[in-house]
Amino acid sequence: MSGRIEVLTIGDELLDGAVLDGNAAHIGAALAGHGRAVTRGERLPDRLDVLVPALKAIAARADVCICTGGLGPTDDDLTLAALAAAAGVERAFDPAAWARVEQVYGARTPPARNRSQATLPVGARPLHTEVGTAPGVEITIGGCRFFALPGVPREMRWFLTRYVLPALERGPRRVRLLRHVGVGESTLAERLDGVALPAGVEIAWLTPLPEVHIKLIGDDPEALDRAAAAIKAATGPAFVGEGDIGLAAATLRACEAVGWRIGAAESCTGGLVGAALTDISGASAVFDGSIVSYANAVKHRALGVPRWILDSPRYGAVSEECARAMALGARQALAVDVAVAITGIAGPGGGSPDKPVGTVWFAWAGLPTAPGPDGVVEPTVAEIRRFSGGRDAIRARAVAHALDRIRRAALRRATPGPAPTTGSSR
Amino acid sequence: MSGRIEVLTIGDELLDGAVLDGNAAHIGAALAGHGRAVTRGERLPDRLDVLVPALKAIAARADVCICTGGLGPTDDDLTLAALAAAAGVERAFDPAAWARVEQVYGARTPPARNRSQATLPVGARPLHTEVGTAPGVEITIGGCRFFALPGVPREMRWFLTRYVLPALERGPRRVRLLRHVGVGESTLAERLDGVALPAGVEIAWLTPLPEVHIKLIGDDPEALDRAAAAIKAATGPAFVGEGDIGLAAATLRACEAVGWRIGAAESCTGGLVGAALTDISGASAVFDGSIVSYANAVKHRALGVPRWILDSPRYGAVSEECARAMALGARQALAVDVAVAITGIAGPGGGSPDKPVGTVWFAWAGLPTAPGPDGVVEPTVAEIRRFSGGRDAIRARAVAHALDRIRRAALRRATPGPAPTTGSSR
Repeated sequence: MSGRIEVLTIGDELLDGAVLDGNAAHIGAALAGHGRAVTRGERLPDRLDVLVPALKAIAARADVCICTGGLGPTDDDLTLAALAAAAGVERAFDPAAWARVEQVYGARTPPARNRSQATLPVGARPLHTEVGTAPGVEITIGGCRFFALPGVPREMRWFLTRYVLPALERGPRRVRLLRHVGVGESTLAERLDGVALPAGVEIAWLTPLPEVHIKLIGDDPEALDRAAAAIKAATGPAFVGEGDIGLAAATLRACEAVGWRIGAAESCTGGLVGAALTDISGASAVFDGSIVSYANAVKHRALGVPRWILDSPRYGAVSEECARAMALGARQALAVDVAVAITGIAGPGGGSPDKPVGTVWFAWAGLPTAPGPDGVVEPTVAEIRRFSGGRDAIRARAVAHALDRIRRAALRRATPGPAPTTGSSR
Repeated sequence: MSGRIEVLTIGDELLDGAVLDGNAAHIGAALAGHGRAVTRGERLPDRLDVLVPALKAIAARADVCICTGGLGPTDDDLTLAALAAAAGVERAFDPAAWARVEQVYGARTPPARNRSQATLPVGARPLHTEVGTAPGVEITIGGCRFFALPGVPREMRWFLTRYVLPALERGPRRVRLLRHVGVGESTLAERLDGVALPAGVEIAWLTPLPEVHIKLIGDDPEALDRAAAAIKAATGPAFVGEGDIGLAAATLRACEAVGWRIGAAESCTGGLVGAALTDISGASAVFDGSIVSYANAVKHRALGVPRWILDSPRYGAVSEECARAMALGARQALAVDVAVAITGIAGPGGGSPDKPVGTVWFAWAGLPTAPGPDGVVEPTVAEIRRFSGGRDAIRARAVAHALDRIRRAALRRATPGPAPTTGSSR
């Protein structure tokens, strides 16, 4: 049943922080999707004296080991040598593996040094590539099946899907990821205080900025369904989606359901609202565009923000008045149903006692609004937020807040509650 | 001299791919900046039966181990218990550590379960926190000093700087990262073929899309200087900057040096050009804004692209004509010196035999250009590229190409070469 699965990622660049270990994360997620858990992970340098004993230790304790990296043709590619040494076998040139390398090179002759890539540990099975030049290998050492895959992420993913997952029995473990926006972890935890989860369902919390994720883990799909339903009922509109569906995709879906076309006027976020929405293929069904007005001159020229707002010491570019004018200007310039405007101070410079770093004004034009106490319907809704964190965090939180208000308004429009009381002070 | 430094990151979420192991990368980079190398890294689950033997193995082979995670107050926070078991000692409540926890909570009383955070292995030194609620600990087991730090990245970084780096002797190892854009790894490698590196300087290649990085490693700063100078001379304008200075920062610097203000018209990149530039604090000295014209209606309304271009089956939104019109429109709408326009097919849908996924048209308005064969100076320069890869890769490559052409033009303007020959066909 190959119970213990380890992941070994090889390369100096992983140890000195030059490269994030995305391969290990991808393998972990792919195995989770296959119902299996990784029990241990190691990152090792390109050094035989470290690799060989580590491979022997893995061979003694694991059932499967997925290795990445060190299969290239250069001197610091040591995985095949290390596997041979750990297995106590020689390496032999494999003409079939070499023929595949030649095939990948097509009309060109592969450099002679690439022959090392086809010089495999005796007893290893070559895993032929269709996506790069490096073959992989499978070899059993002790009681452990090693799959050695190239380190190039695109190639590694192809090998994983083509050779490794089919070789592993699908496990019972299921993971569901419920994603939330617009509430903190502690508030969300309080809302779940009264929620009883079915037996056999574990819960874990993750907080990848600006979302809060609740992960449910268990073997029984029906129990996971019940747990997910109970959590969604408790978290309400803070729940945005499951798995791949994050805030941007959820916003697009909610707007599509009510037929809204949306756009933005961005200052401190500099294009991130548009970038987030257009990261989703098919965004064009909802998102028309954004005016990135980083300079005040552009706020004036392209969005029609009056100069007296921009130049006034009382208002300025980071003000309610500017945000409202930007939103109206974007709605008109882009001819969309709903436009959001964002103007703030992302830092690290530019803060003042009045408007410290993290101060962000938002305005939305075109959102359904109730009449105010005087019976007048404001054409825009405006809000101020003071976000904590560094420049990246402030910008990410600002994008999330801008989109989330649109998403929630579209959801309310799709399933209208009781009509707002005229004259309500909220 | 504490030669062998290992990093141990603890948490199920690291093994199942829900969270990228950014802490390990950050520690590796921080140590590299301190002249030291991480010799090995492990990711372990929240399980005592795995943690204790792994800690014992580390104690037997390493001089220093930096651990993160598992210091919280909940049942799956097992680091203190595992360290005590590996050291063969009991845990004892530490009133001083608890007093610090109480201090962090201020007026509120810490929950009783948090007492576990102040119940330390006997012989451990508490590392007090000023940034969260979890204290860290330092404990020596066998010949190895363990530093156990919280897993929250912001807190971990604080502990690393406050306690760990000052405890480690600065090493001689220096790393320099030379970043390049606009050439592939193999082309760059060919250009370095004749370059002799000084002895004691190692070279490594990294290819974080869309850049190519050359990393130089060595103990002798002067040899590294010579190596860096030789490489820069060989790679020419493909070199964009060192260390933190990537393409966006280099583009801003180059434009600032010649006094250009820049802007963009973005379709398939959806705001990524603006987002990349405004990721750099101080971008406002050069970058004014961008018109994200995802919908054709916005290309027409906000950029003045004629409807006959957009609606024509012969041209359409992904065409040279559209790109040129977008660039001119953006230059005018934003009142900038140089505007770049990007319109293409990022996929996965939307491709056609004529214009497959990855086809991107670029145009730049305002770049210095030589007169054509007929003596006419075109107001725009246009180019087509066919990028490979998925949606993210295509968009990232498009942003890089758009900025790199501006950067190179600004560099040429700053250090003019021989005047172009009038009538040249290039």
